[in-house]
Amino acid sequence: MSDLEDIKIRARRFAEVRDWEQFHSPKNLVMALSVEAAELVEIFQWLTEEQSERLSDETLARVVDEIADVQVYLVRLADRLHVDIAAAVVQKMEKNEDKYPAELVRGSARKYSDY
Amino acid sequence: MSDLEDIKIRARRFAEVRDWEQFHSPKNLVMALSVEAAELVEIFQWLTEEQSERLSDETLARVVDEIADVQVYLVRLADRLHVDIAAAVVQKMEKNEDKYPAELVRGSARKYSDY
Amino acid sequence: MSDLEDIKIRARRFAEVRDWEQFHSPKNLVMALSVEAAELVEIFQWLTEEQSERLSDETLARVVDEIADVQVYLVRLADRLHVDIAAAVVQKMEKNEDKYPAELVRGSARKYSDY
Amino acid sequence: MSDLEDIKIRARRFAEVRDWEQFHSPKNLVMALSVEAAELVEIFQWLTEEQSERLSDETLARVVDEIADVQVYLVRLADRLHVDIAAAVVQKMEKNEDKYPAELVRGSARKYSDY
Repeated sequence: MSDLEDIKIRARRFAEVRDWEQFHSPKNLVMALSVEAAELVEIFQWLTEEQSERLSDETLARVVDEIADVQVYLVRLADRLHVDIAAAVVQKMEKNEDKYPAELVRGSARKYSDY
Repeated sequence: MSDLEDIKIRARRFAEVRDWEQFHSPKNLVMALSVEAAELVEIFQWLTEEQSERLSDETLARVVDEIADVQVYLVRLADRLHVDIAAAVVQKMEKNEDKYPAELVRGSARKYSDY
Repeated sequence: MSDLEDIKIRARRFAEVRDWEQFHSPKNLVMALSVEAAELVEIFQWLTEEQSERLSDETLARVVDEIADVQVYLVRLADRLHVDIAAAVVQKMEKNEDKYPAELVRGSARKYSDY
Repeated sequence: MSDLEDIKIRARRFAEVRDWEQFHSPKNLVMALSVEAAELVEIFQWLTEEQSERLSDETLARVVDEIADVQVYLVRLADRLHVDIAAAVVQKMEKNEDKYPAELVRGSARKYSDY
């Protein structure tokens, strides 16, 4: 089984045996997802970009935990909405590959400021 | 190859051929991740929980795109920090299974309000 | 002096005497602002909309603290960028009053889902 | 009248005449607040800290608009919960002044990484 499938099954079971599915409406799950993403932002907010490249072991351990939390809530959200994440990513990356042709955007932050 | 590995390779290549790795410091990537998570929140902010369970096809298509964006930035962040997401999730879920024994927390939002 | 001016002066002084201005680049301040906003989201994430209208005294006290944190970082950000928040709000509300004529949007969440 | 009171009255009236109070539960308002904060993060995500100090006029105009949006939703949230923002800030800053004595924390990011 794929790793995203594995996570889906395990996270679903985790919620079911605790009877927590009732809290996991998509609305609530996007809130939880954004909170976990913010916990990552919190770790990095006062670091310079350079410092963010070389974290202490202790800080990295916290980052690893928060990455896991974001992944679990993303999988739970997708599960509740019957979305296949791997397929969604392939479809989105194809769109992005068309939208940002390498030869036109190379090395430019233009894309980034141009929304 | 696993789903998450596939996404990692493809997203890394996408950044490399555009020479965008230079923008992808962990600090910047957590910002981008949180922005994509907020785009999900934006879709759901005025919906009731009930409405959030039954999205129109058009809204669901937007959600699918945003789920993909969150997944891609999470994978990019993990890649830059040499974090194995699948292993991180297993480790975190083991912690959570110990922290929230099913027989003690069943059906209770207590955990949730009790931080 | 106006209350936003009061907060600006006090928050600026708070940072200056601690020599923390060096951490308060606009980039870092928007990160901090978004983290504080997420701490509000965390409090509300598992509550129903109805529950969110009638918070316990203890929960409300936490909300009050987080509202203060968001306000302080917003004022710090505006201070660093020489933005007058009160004027910015007047200008934005005039735009919104034109954009959403009451007689056209009354009672409709259309505006909200229509972006 | 104070700035914050002015904004409160105007934002309340804006919602009332459009019959939008029904969407403005505290839960929904914190979501909207966090979305507006993320729109600020989006503007700054690929900028260096140095670039974030000297924005183009066009970028600054967008920042001004987003600062206004954050302020309005913060005031709306406080209004719905009967919270006095100015008083909340005074109380929180007194706590912070006690918690971070200038002579102990001066020039150190320690506080920041030490949560």
